[in-house]
Amino acid sequence: MLRKERLFTPGPTPLLPSAQFAMAAAGMHHRTAEFRKLYAQTLADLKEFVGTSNDVLILASSGTGAMEASVANLTSPGDKVLVLTAGKFGERWRDLTRAYNCSVEVLSVAYGETFSGAAIREKLSPELRAVYVQATESSTGARHNLETIARSVRQHSPDAVLVVDAITGFGTTRLDIDGWGIDIILGGSQKALMIPPGLAYLAVSERAWQRMESAKNPRYYFDLRKERKAAAKGESAFTPAVALIAALGASLQYIRQVGGGEVSRGREQLIGNAELCAAMTRSAAQALGLKLFAPTCPATALTAIQAPTGVDSGTIVKAFRERFGAVVANGQGEMKGKLFRIAHLGYYDYLDTIGIVAALEHITAELGLTRAFGTGARAAQEVFAAESNAAHQRQPVTTSV
Amino acid sequence: MLRKERLFTPGPTPLLPSAQFAMAAAGMHHRTAEFRKLYAQTLADLKEFVGTSNDVLILASSGTGAMEASVANLTSPGDKVLVLTAGKFGERWRDLTRAYNCSVEVLSVAYGETFSGAAIREKLSPELRAVYVQATESSTGARHNLETIARSVRQHSPDAVLVVDAITGFGTTRLDIDGWGIDIILGGSQKALMIPPGLAYLAVSERAWQRMESAKNPRYYFDLRKERKAAAKGESAFTPAVALIAALGASLQYIRQVGGGEVSRGREQLIGNAELCAAMTRSAAQALGLKLFAPTCPATALTAIQAPTGVDSGTIVKAFRERFGAVVANGQGEMKGKLFRIAHLGYYDYLDTIGIVAALEHITAELGLTRAFGTGARAAQEVFAAESNAAHQRQPVTTSV
Repeated sequence: MLRKERLFTPGPTPLLPSAQFAMAAAGMHHRTAEFRKLYAQTLADLKEFVGTSNDVLILASSGTGAMEASVANLTSPGDKVLVLTAGKFGERWRDLTRAYNCSVEVLSVAYGETFSGAAIREKLSPELRAVYVQATESSTGARHNLETIARSVRQHSPDAVLVVDAITGFGTTRLDIDGWGIDIILGGSQKALMIPPGLAYLAVSERAWQRMESAKNPRYYFDLRKERKAAAKGESAFTPAVALIAALGASLQYIRQVGGGEVSRGREQLIGNAELCAAMTRSAAQALGLKLFAPTCPATALTAIQAPTGVDSGTIVKAFRERFGAVVANGQGEMKGKLFRIAHLGYYDYLDTIGIVAALEHITAELGLTRAFGTGARAAQEVFAAESNAAHQRQPVTTSV
Repeated sequence: MLRKERLFTPGPTPLLPSAQFAMAAAGMHHRTAEFRKLYAQTLADLKEFVGTSNDVLILASSGTGAMEASVANLTSPGDKVLVLTAGKFGERWRDLTRAYNCSVEVLSVAYGETFSGAAIREKLSPELRAVYVQATESSTGARHNLETIARSVRQHSPDAVLVVDAITGFGTTRLDIDGWGIDIILGGSQKALMIPPGLAYLAVSERAWQRMESAKNPRYYFDLRKERKAAAKGESAFTPAVALIAALGASLQYIRQVGGGEVSRGREQLIGNAELCAAMTRSAAQALGLKLFAPTCPATALTAIQAPTGVDSGTIVKAFRERFGAVVANGQGEMKGKLFRIAHLGYYDYLDTIGIVAALEHITAELGLTRAFGTGARAAQEVFAAESNAAHQRQPVTTSV
């Protein structure tokens, strides 16, 4: 049978066709009125997507570049910072803050788990200068309770800036950035925004801007103050990734269209979409006798599923690719071989989701996990049908007199 | 939930990405060495795809253009011709041959059926100058037995040229064009070849070339002798549809790749792929309690499914589109409202097929056809699993001594 290559990885995610076309067409020079218009509009739409009154900036870098910017701009050598880590991306905060010579306190929980309110409070102190955390830990498929974390930080470490890596959190998680007092929150282009890697973006609070004035760590390309100044003129501080900006513009236009004319409503639709894909996938996996990796705090961005006992998850990843053309992610770091990850963030729909679930049935059947064919599909279909009914009931009903 | 627009119509079919890129890049002039090289290679590959030693030509037209060419080039006013019709496309042969003032004999069977050998023989006579038929009648999802038809024609009407519309037959049906003595067989680009509409192609036998010398009907743009002369120099008689030729070249390259380096083997893979998609879909539809429209002679190109009693098939078509983004075809002509058609020809894979089947389950459930969710998916999965096992057993086994 033919196999179409389809990405089910939690980044990069499937590309939005209209963004691909915009990218291919983007031959403009970046120091022109034409580009400034595109850039200013894209920044404004992105700000609505992010959902904040803070400044929103774009960097030509991967998400890690924005992570580095959030360390380099906000800290000085010796600053006491707290890193919350529950997986490979938490460990990146640890490594980054150490690289910038912070005095790093780490609150670490096992892969697949999240932080208890009590454990966080215990680590918080008035001396902390910064707290670094993920919204969702994509290496394990766990979601952290950002609201609780943020409220604790604001209460017990009032001088700390709170920095959130929402690379897979944006477009999958409901966030109240301003209400919770998040100082920097950052994302990447190749996730819910449905375009290729190469752009990072961040929202920066007034408290963060103030901190930058005293922060002593070195930065140049990632100096956010330069970007803020340039953005005010509809420009970027350094050469922007023009084609990716054009793609981002098209993606945000699509999100606006999905939202009936409002980017923020489109974002909510996108979150609801990922939630439904995730719920279908979790239900199917469990019906097939598989165990979720992060059952108590499952992320919406992706579902991490444990390989059955005695099976290397690489076998499952390989079968998805070779038999169905579907690229799913293996575990990362110490989780390699133990779990596989199916993404829901961005441009996925019913056919994608039921398709990957049905393919999973063939793979588990061949691994000897005997379930009647259709068991996983049915579980996913029941979730979809229940949600469709609920959505139908939520619609305003026109009554006739 | 997001809805990706996906074509499940028996033409146009989903576009092959590499063909889309080739099409977008095709800015060349057509009277250049560069284009001649592309055109000659594409004609050679197309000939291998068609599977014939006859001349293969390309026209810048829809498939109907090649149908018209097959009438205008081969007939004279008053010629006695036989048209075999079992649906809307058979009727097109009737209308075309009448438009060219042939004396048209029609063998007509009900929509969804095919011709018996006896009925065909009864219509054949030594005076017939031409016979026109479809390989598959895409308006009803029926496949005709071309081998039987061709052998009868050759035996009972030795002077007749046999013309086959294989617009949805190419890449879905095994054909022995030279062995059966088919004089013109024609296809269109937007079907199994996975590119947009705009090109037609035909294979022309020696008997057909001879007939053209005496045929009196008028033709200019569609004069196949002009195309033959131009093709010998790697050119087209009139301005070619350059971007579509580039797309066709890329599509044939993909088919060669699927065939492990041979276009003809790639075509067989494509046929096997459509057969499996069709078998999965038929099995699922029947498991859901639906009736096939052409149960005795189902085509591989598409499956025509009857709307349940009391349901207009337009409702089902609309639900596929509005709820799942899937474009399936309604019945055509007198079949409108009575059936819907799901395509298998061209660029479809497992995820597409199981997806459309699962979507159909939601639609039939809401129409009150109560089956447990997963019933259709399971039926399709069982077909796929059985075929996968069979394919596995067909593979050469390495034995150790």
